[in-house]
Amino acid sequence: MTKAPLALTLGDPAGIGPELTVSAWEILKNTEHCFFWLGDPTLLDGVIPTQLISAPEEAAGVFATALPVLPIYCPVTIVPGQPTPSNAPAVIESIRKAVELALTGSASGVVTNPIAKHILAESGFPHPGHTEFLAQLCSVSGQEIMMLASPELRVVPVSIHVSLQNAIHSLTAERIITVTRIANKALTQDFGLKNPKLAIAGLNPHAGESGLMGHEEHSIIIPAINALKEEGIDAQGPYPPDTMFAAHARTQYDAAICMYHDQGLIPLKTLDMTQGVNITLGLPIVRTSPDHGTAFDIAQPLSAPSKKADARSLVAAIRTASKMAHNRKEKAL
Amino acid sequence: MTKAPLALTLGDPAGIGPELTVSAWEILKNTEHCFFWLGDPTLLDGVIPTQLISAPEEAAGVFATALPVLPIYCPVTIVPGQPTPSNAPAVIESIRKAVELALTGSASGVVTNPIAKHILAESGFPHPGHTEFLAQLCSVSGQEIMMLASPELRVVPVSIHVSLQNAIHSLTAERIITVTRIANKALTQDFGLKNPKLAIAGLNPHAGESGLMGHEEHSIIIPAINALKEEGIDAQGPYPPDTMFAAHARTQYDAAICMYHDQGLIPLKTLDMTQGVNITLGLPIVRTSPDHGTAFDIAQPLSAPSKKADARSLVAAIRTASKMAHNRKEKAL
Repeated sequence: MTKAPLALTLGDPAGIGPELTVSAWEILKNTEHCFFWLGDPTLLDGVIPTQLISAPEEAAGVFATALPVLPIYCPVTIVPGQPTPSNAPAVIESIRKAVELALTGSASGVVTNPIAKHILAESGFPHPGHTEFLAQLCSVSGQEIMMLASPELRVVPVSIHVSLQNAIHSLTAERIITVTRIANKALTQDFGLKNPKLAIAGLNPHAGESGLMGHEEHSIIIPAINALKEEGIDAQGPYPPDTMFAAHARTQYDAAICMYHDQGLIPLKTLDMTQGVNITLGLPIVRTSPDHGTAFDIAQPLSAPSKKADARSLVAAIRTASKMAHNRKEKAL
Repeated sequence: MTKAPLALTLGDPAGIGPELTVSAWEILKNTEHCFFWLGDPTLLDGVIPTQLISAPEEAAGVFATALPVLPIYCPVTIVPGQPTPSNAPAVIESIRKAVELALTGSASGVVTNPIAKHILAESGFPHPGHTEFLAQLCSVSGQEIMMLASPELRVVPVSIHVSLQNAIHSLTAERIITVTRIANKALTQDFGLKNPKLAIAGLNPHAGESGLMGHEEHSIIIPAINALKEEGIDAQGPYPPDTMFAAHARTQYDAAICMYHDQGLIPLKTLDMTQGVNITLGLPIVRTSPDHGTAFDIAQPLSAPSKKADARSLVAAIRTASKMAHNRKEKAL
């Protein structure tokens, strides 16, 4: 092994996370994408071989024959499909510990299983989601940005969980510049691209058609692109949003910088709902997650798994984090 | 032949319209999708067999062996790739005549070749585009709405060529209701569907997530859906915009009613840039067009065609108009 293993978090133990974890280990056990699970080993009794470890360094030696588990026990018995705030402390501790291990270098990155925000909120968890909590744990709150990646497309929205009205109001050249810089750095450092090509979307239909349908392209987006070009970043646009994700167009760039959440997520999920990976950029650590939720409605006991849970997104998240960590290590050498 | 032929307009004669017309006739000449061209026959000299006609009734008898042409001559010599406002009168007359023939029933519908708005504007043409001109010719200005259809998806945006900001400001329950009613009627009357399923999109990320990211779902969209349901229209939603166009989701409805231009056009063009058809609903006549422009950059003389122009969208537009006209006729009997 050339690098430390990845830390995979518990996620909500009543969701499909445990089943996905088992599937991911079965798929990846003979690859170099070694990970360990920060979860409750009692959940896996009799399901797959597991090996309790006390430190990440022990993971590589056992990964091919057993899932390495750094145990974090849930206080309350887990009933699949029936989440409870009583287990929130274990869910949160798993994330906290994973970040701690990644920050010290014992883990090469963090992959998170899905959590249920409303369940954590009931227990007093103050963050809107994973990403904001991770940024706080890394002491970089506000610098976190989201990339979604699938085999065909990478998108980076400049705003995420705000109304469309607020996304327009909060759009500034500064924000576009910041997000594009972070994306450019990540594509270089974590994805191994030499001169990443960044396609900057317009905000309005036809990218405003010379001001006939909106002014933001001229007042905000074009000045941002010009400033980015002056820094030597290969940022082009603004492109008409409806054609820039078409089959040929999307082969012409490495990532699309999108002016609002759905502008980026609609084409990504239209193309591929199964292999999308959510990547948090702007953190000092590598972090990915599958692009779906806890799916309580299909969660089943591991002794009789429904096999309805599709592990492709988690597997893609682990592979992506592993490659990112590898590239980052190579760059640092 | 069970119905009148379709009228295909000239479009900008310096664009790819003439080449596409030739290709479409070659592809369709042995099918029931009979059309005639309201164009300049001198353009086609020596390219394919043509037959001048003086009335649409003559088209069916010759369609298999020659392209029927109801002649409209261009005043100025046509140079492919070099459009001129001097030919605008012929371009406009072709559209006017096609609509006249469709309104009287001599043509079963109108398929329009691409025009260049800025060239027509230079000649004094006061309309923003085809659709508005057609609505005026049919005396239904303001009732026209756009549907884009591909083999995998139909979308109907409630607003089109306005800024994203104005799209939000002009969003009302009334407008959503009007557009959905027209779409529902068209799917029944023109597409032969018994009980069309209409998926109404949310405006905001995650369809507002219970008001956390925008209020329009609760104040505008849900009331519109409730009113539509009371009328007996199968309108469901509001759906999270990013997941409603995914592979499985888009098989669950017949058309998506979209809250702004790009919300509908991004997924449609992401899936398919070659077979999209633009359909104008809300007119008393059937009207379709290919989903692309004049492409002056690849327009070549017909004596030495580049074959770069892809006729699939025009062919799909003709097939779609033909089927719509057939269904409308069946319904009327």
